[in-house]
Amino acid sequence: MRVGVYEVDGEPTLYVHDGDAAASLGTVDLVELLRDGTAAQRIADAAAGATPGGGPPQGARRLAPLRRPGKQVFVGVNYHDHVDELPPPWTMTADPFLFAKLPSAIIGPGEAIVIPGPENKVDYEVELLVVIGRRAKHLTEADALDHVFGYTIVNDVTERVIQATDSQLIWGKGFDTFCPMGPDIVLTDEIPDPAGLGIWTTVNGEERQRSSTDNFIFSIPDILARITRHITLEPGDTVSTGTPAGVGYVKDPPVFLAPGDTVTVGVDRIGELTNTVRAGWED
Amino acid sequence: MRVGVYEVDGEPTLYVHDGDAAASLGTVDLVELLRDGTAAQRIADAAAGATPGGGPPQGARRLAPLRRPGKQVFVGVNYHDHVDELPPPWTMTADPFLFAKLPSAIIGPGEAIVIPGPENKVDYEVELLVVIGRRAKHLTEADALDHVFGYTIVNDVTERVIQATDSQLIWGKGFDTFCPMGPDIVLTDEIPDPAGLGIWTTVNGEERQRSSTDNFIFSIPDILARITRHITLEPGDTVSTGTPAGVGYVKDPPVFLAPGDTVTVGVDRIGELTNTVRAGWED
Repeated sequence: MRVGVYEVDGEPTLYVHDGDAAASLGTVDLVELLRDGTAAQRIADAAAGATPGGGPPQGARRLAPLRRPGKQVFVGVNYHDHVDELPPPWTMTADPFLFAKLPSAIIGPGEAIVIPGPENKVDYEVELLVVIGRRAKHLTEADALDHVFGYTIVNDVTERVIQATDSQLIWGKGFDTFCPMGPDIVLTDEIPDPAGLGIWTTVNGEERQRSSTDNFIFSIPDILARITRHITLEPGDTVSTGTPAGVGYVKDPPVFLAPGDTVTVGVDRIGELTNTVRAGWED
Repeated sequence: MRVGVYEVDGEPTLYVHDGDAAASLGTVDLVELLRDGTAAQRIADAAAGATPGGGPPQGARRLAPLRRPGKQVFVGVNYHDHVDELPPPWTMTADPFLFAKLPSAIIGPGEAIVIPGPENKVDYEVELLVVIGRRAKHLTEADALDHVFGYTIVNDVTERVIQATDSQLIWGKGFDTFCPMGPDIVLTDEIPDPAGLGIWTTVNGEERQRSSTDNFIFSIPDILARITRHITLEPGDTVSTGTPAGVGYVKDPPVFLAPGDTVTVGVDRIGELTNTVRAGWED
């Protein structure tokens, strides 16, 4: 099963898709359902009544599947192929390299990534995003995936000028519109094991990143176990898993997103998330 | 006026205090009221009916005034006296040094700060916390304070071993229980200007930090204007303003919090926030 959010009659409306059938759960907020512990049952109940015609109205606009995750813990460097392309001195840390992505940066499929000014150098980073379903503290690798609600795609859009001058990643990765998310959250019945998933980025149709989650440095169970030694993950929180090789700023010559570009990020079994790029200084 | 949250009949219950009078707003969540835009009117309505006997029941346990801020943007280094005590090479950045404090770390007055293991070196940092009341993007210094709902106190508890080895502050400042907050949020009618407020820390009654918000490097209007160039601040978000001189890890010899300690952080016109310290390895 998978869940997605669409704008219907002006309101964010949650749908469950089970194969070719679908059903609406109404204008509920998925993070709230995850927090109050009713998400799994309500989704199962809705899916039981799903029909081929039960999906969103034709042409309904997709929205990000999560509006206000409680927190977003992102792993900065987690693909062997990405480590290989980074300029020295990149030294792997014993634990995952973590930063926080601000929920206010979230946008949905089709929305525009806004480059604030002509001086900004803005880059894409495709990532597989883990959505937490059950409160998690002191997880073991063996039980970690039991706490996952599902998986979606995020584009960890990053401003590289600020990243190069500021030691903390909150600025360069936290700008408004810099967290495209979606399209659906695919539940764990469809992805029981997140290993071996292809992951890619195209810009204007040209491939820029292509790898597989088999190239993870830290597996998802390992990441979740390490974080929850000290930090409780709550239902509706997200954990991102790093980006593979092919980011623009380390290419020779470097390439950045430009107004008018279309950037698509994809992950096997989830789908593709496409966003446009717009010049904020023309607002 | 000030607002505080108490546990009444097992539920977090919001109260407004107006001088010696008080009134309950019921089991509403302040962040939700701020988001839906009804907080100011509901607080004013409740305050209009406040009475000397309208406060929480005698002995009711205080809780943190905010449970789930949408995000917490913290300024890392913002007092001239703290810069002076830091070991080189600390170089001031052109913009405030920002990191994110995880909402899952929040605890209330009287709760225990938990040191996970005997190897951890845990330190206090008193800070004045700004609670955002109105959506804020592209603020000017002149209009920034109009977007503030009120002020409270936070103890930016920090694990120094991890801080020294990990470039991102999310780990060492994000542990569960490392964000004591409270006691009340003091609204802007009582603090129209956050300049010149005394700020201090004691551990077991011994003074460790004492300064004034006059020692800020970036003023609160300046911080809010700089953040909102690129990052929208939403109602119920928080922005913290840095800690003054006197943190434990730069003292000679360094001092850290120990199980059994009582740490109190205070700010003029807001009050004091006291927490105990407990050994997590004895759980």
